[in-house]
Amino acid sequence: MVKLIALYKHPQNKEEFDQHYFETHAPMTSKIPGLRKMVVTRITGSPMGGEGKYYLMCEMYYDSHDALKAAMKSDEGRASGKDAMSFAGDLITMMIGEELNQE
Amino acid sequence: MVKLIALYKHPQNKEEFDQHYFETHAPMTSKIPGLRKMVVTRITGSPMGGEGKYYLMCEMYYDSHDALKAAMKSDEGRASGKDAMSFAGDLITMMIGEELNQE
Repeated sequence: MVKLIALYKHPQNKEEFDQHYFETHAPMTSKIPGLRKMVVTRITGSPMGGEGKYYLMCEMYYDSHDALKAAMKSDEGRASGKDAMSFAGDLITMMIGEELNQE
Repeated sequence: MVKLIALYKHPQNKEEFDQHYFETHAPMTSKIPGLRKMVVTRITGSPMGGEGKYYLMCEMYYDSHDALKAAMKSDEGRASGKDAMSFAGDLITMMIGEELNQE
Protein backbone atom coordinates (compact mmCIF):
# COMPACT_ATOMS: atom_id res chain seq x y z
CA MET A 1 0.00 0.00 0.00
CA VAL A 2 0.90 3.63 -0.41
CA LYS A 3 1.08 5.81 2.67
CA LEU A 4 1.44 9.48 3.35
CA ILE A 5 3.54 9.96 6.49
CA ALA A 6 3.41 13.12 8.59
CA LEU A 7 6.14 13.37 11.19
CA TYR A 8 5.85 16.21 13.72
CA LYS A 9 8.73 17.58 15.77
CA HIS A 10 8.11 18.37 19.43
CA PRO A 11 5.80 21.38 19.72
CA GLN A 12 6.51 24.16 22.20
CA ASN A 13 3.12 23.68 23.83
CA LYS A 14 2.23 19.98 23.80
CA GLU A 15 -1.19 20.50 25.40
CA GLU A 16 -2.28 23.02 22.76
CA PHE A 17 -0.85 20.84 19.99
CA ASP A 18 -2.65 17.72 21.22
CA GLN A 19 -5.95 19.56 21.60
CA HIS A 20 -5.84 20.91 18.07
CA TYR A 21 -4.45 17.69 16.62
CA PHE A 22 -6.93 15.27 18.15
CA GLU A 23 -10.02 17.49 18.27
CA THR A 24 -9.71 19.31 14.96
CA HIS A 25 -6.95 18.07 12.66
CA ALA A 26 -7.34 14.29 12.91
CA PRO A 27 -11.15 14.34 12.47
CA MET A 28 -10.71 16.66 9.45
CA THR A 29 -8.07 14.37 7.93
CA SER A 30 -10.14 11.24 8.50
CA LYS A 31 -12.79 12.65 6.11
CA ILE A 32 -10.43 12.74 3.10
CA PRO A 33 -11.88 10.65 0.26
CA GLY A 34 -9.95 7.47 -0.53
CA LEU A 35 -8.27 7.26 2.89
CA ARG A 36 -8.23 3.55 3.83
CA LYS A 37 -6.61 3.67 7.26
CA MET A 38 -5.07 6.29 9.52
CA VAL A 39 -2.61 5.30 12.24
CA VAL A 40 -1.37 7.84 14.78
CA THR A 41 1.75 7.01 16.78
CA ARG A 42 2.90 8.92 19.80
CA ILE A 43 6.70 8.92 19.99
CA THR A 44 7.67 8.14 23.54
CA GLY A 45 11.44 8.26 23.25
CA SER A 46 14.52 6.90 21.62
CA PRO A 47 16.45 3.67 22.27
CA MET A 48 19.51 5.88 22.76
CA GLY A 49 17.69 7.69 25.60
CA GLY A 50 16.25 11.20 25.61
CA GLU A 51 13.02 12.28 23.96
CA GLY A 52 14.47 12.57 20.46
CA LYS A 53 13.51 14.99 17.75
CA TYR A 54 10.00 13.82 16.87
CA TYR A 55 6.77 13.91 18.83
CA LEU A 56 4.05 12.33 16.71
CA MET A 57 3.67 10.38 13.47
CA CYS A 58 0.55 9.92 11.38
CA GLU A 59 0.38 7.30 8.61
CA MET A 60 -2.42 7.68 6.08
CA TYR A 61 -3.00 4.72 3.78
CA TYR A 62 -4.28 4.84 0.21
CA ASP A 63 -4.79 2.21 -2.50
CA SER A 64 -2.29 3.76 -4.92
CA HIS A 65 -0.22 6.84 -5.72
CA ASP A 66 -3.06 8.04 -7.95
CA ALA A 67 -5.56 7.70 -5.11
CA LEU A 68 -3.23 9.67 -2.85
CA LYS A 69 -2.81 12.42 -5.46
CA ALA A 70 -6.58 12.66 -5.91
CA ALA A 71 -7.03 12.78 -2.13
CA MET A 72 -4.59 15.66 -1.75
CA LYS A 73 -6.41 17.61 -4.46
CA SER A 74 -9.86 17.05 -2.93
CA ASP A 75 -11.53 19.80 -0.89
CA GLU A 76 -11.07 17.73 2.27
CA GLY A 77 -7.41 17.09 1.45
CA ARG A 78 -6.73 20.76 0.83
CA ALA A 79 -8.51 21.74 4.04
CA SER A 80 -6.45 19.23 6.04
CA GLY A 81 -3.20 20.40 4.44
CA LYS A 82 -4.03 24.04 5.08
CA ASP A 83 -4.89 23.26 8.70
CA ALA A 84 -1.61 21.34 9.20
CA MET A 85 0.40 24.23 7.81
CA SER A 86 -1.43 26.72 10.04
CA PHE A 87 -0.93 24.93 13.36
CA ALA A 88 2.27 22.94 12.69
CA GLY A 89 3.90 24.27 9.51
CA ASP A 90 7.28 24.58 11.21
CA LEU A 91 7.06 21.14 12.86
CA ILE A 92 5.94 18.86 10.06
CA THR A 93 7.88 16.61 7.66
CA MET A 94 5.78 14.90 4.99
CA MET A 95 6.77 11.76 3.10
CA ILE A 96 5.15 9.43 0.61
CA GLY A 97 6.06 5.77 0.99
CA GLU A 98 5.36 2.29 -0.30
CA GLU A 99 5.18 -0.56 2.18
CA LEU A 100 7.37 -3.34 0.82
CA ASN A 101 6.59 -6.28 3.02
CA GLN A 102 5.01 -7.44 6.21
CA GLU A 103 6.68 -10.24 8.11
CA MET B 1 1.15 -1.78 20.13
CA VAL B 2 4.66 -0.54 20.71
CA LYS B 3 6.93 -0.03 17.75
CA LEU B 4 10.57 0.73 17.21
CA ILE B 5 10.94 2.98 14.18
CA ALA B 6 14.18 3.27 12.20
CA LEU B 7 14.24 6.10 9.71
CA TYR B 8 17.18 6.20 7.28
CA LYS B 9 18.33 9.27 5.40
CA HIS B 10 19.31 8.87 1.73
CA PRO B 11 22.56 6.89 1.49
CA GLN B 12 25.33 7.99 -0.85
CA ASN B 13 25.26 4.63 -2.62
CA LYS B 14 21.68 3.36 -2.75
CA GLU B 15 22.59 0.09 -4.45
CA GLU B 16 25.12 -0.85 -1.74
CA PHE B 17 22.71 0.25 0.97
CA ASP B 18 19.83 -1.81 -0.45
CA GLN B 19 22.00 -4.88 -0.87
CA HIS B 20 23.20 -4.78 2.72
CA TYR B 21 19.82 -3.78 4.08
CA PHE B 22 17.72 -6.43 2.37
CA GLU B 23 20.24 -9.28 2.24
CA THR B 24 21.90 -8.90 5.63
CA HIS B 25 20.31 -6.37 7.97
CA ALA B 26 16.59 -7.13 7.56
CA PRO B 27 17.02 -10.94 7.86
CA MET B 28 19.17 -10.38 10.98
CA THR B 29 16.57 -8.05 12.50
CA SER B 30 13.70 -10.40 11.72
CA LYS B 31 15.27 -12.98 14.08
CA ILE B 32 15.02 -10.75 17.17
CA PRO B 33 12.98 -12.51 19.87
CA GLY B 34 9.59 -10.94 20.60
CA LEU B 35 9.34 -9.17 17.24
CA ARG B 36 5.70 -9.45 16.15
CA LYS B 37 5.76 -7.72 12.79
CA MET B 38 8.27 -5.81 10.70
CA VAL B 39 7.15 -3.36 8.03
CA VAL B 40 9.64 -1.78 5.63
CA THR B 41 8.56 1.32 3.72
CA ARG B 42 10.45 2.77 0.81
CA ILE B 43 10.06 6.56 0.77
CA THR B 44 9.32 7.58 -2.79
CA GLY B 45 9.05 11.33 -2.36
CA SER B 46 7.34 14.19 -0.66
CA PRO B 47 3.96 15.80 -1.38
CA MET B 48 5.84 19.08 -1.68
CA GLY B 49 7.93 17.56 -4.50
CA GLY B 50 11.56 16.47 -4.43
CA GLU B 51 12.90 13.32 -2.85
CA GLY B 52 12.90 14.66 0.70
CA LYS B 53 15.33 13.84 3.48
CA TYR B 54 14.50 10.22 4.18
CA TYR B 55 14.98 7.07 2.11
CA LEU B 56 13.61 4.13 4.07
CA MET B 57 11.60 3.43 7.22
CA CYS B 58 11.39 0.21 9.18
CA GLU B 59 8.71 -0.33 11.82
CA MET B 60 9.27 -3.18 14.27
CA TYR B 61 6.31 -4.14 16.44
CA TYR B 62 6.44 -5.55 19.98
CA ASP B 63 3.78 -6.42 22.52
CA SER B 64 4.97 -3.88 25.09
CA HIS B 65 7.79 -1.54 26.10
CA ASP B 66 9.19 -4.34 28.27
CA ALA B 67 9.20 -6.75 25.34
CA LEU B 68 11.02 -4.13 23.24
CA LYS B 69 13.60 -3.55 25.98
CA ALA B 70 14.21 -7.28 26.31
CA ALA B 71 14.52 -7.57 22.52
CA MET B 72 17.15 -4.84 22.34
CA LYS B 73 19.16 -6.56 25.07
CA SER B 74 19.03 -9.98 23.40
CA ASP B 75 22.01 -11.29 21.42
CA GLU B 76 20.02 -10.91 18.19
CA GLY B 77 18.97 -7.36 19.11
CA ARG B 78 22.54 -6.33 19.91
CA ALA B 79 23.80 -7.88 16.67
CA SER B 80 21.18 -6.02 14.64
CA GLY B 81 21.94 -2.72 16.41
CA LYS B 82 25.68 -3.16 15.89
CA ASP B 83 25.12 -3.96 12.21
CA ALA B 84 22.88 -0.87 11.75
CA MET B 85 25.52 1.37 13.32
CA SER B 86 28.25 -0.10 11.11
CA PHE B 87 26.52 0.35 7.75
CA ALA B 88 24.21 3.29 8.47
CA GLY B 89 25.25 4.92 11.73
CA ASP B 90 25.27 8.38 10.18
CA LEU B 91 21.93 7.86 8.37
CA ILE B 92 19.67 6.42 11.05
CA THR B 93 17.15 8.01 13.42
CA MET B 94 15.59 5.65 15.95
CA MET B 95 12.29 6.25 17.74
CA ILE B 96 10.05 4.31 20.08
CA GLY B 97 6.34 4.86 19.58
CA GLU B 98 2.90 3.76 20.72
CA GLU B 99 0.18 3.38 18.11
CA LEU B 100 -2.85 5.22 19.43
CA ASN B 101 -5.63 4.21 17.12
CA GLN B 102 -6.47 2.60 13.84
CA GLU B 103 -9.34 4.06 11.88
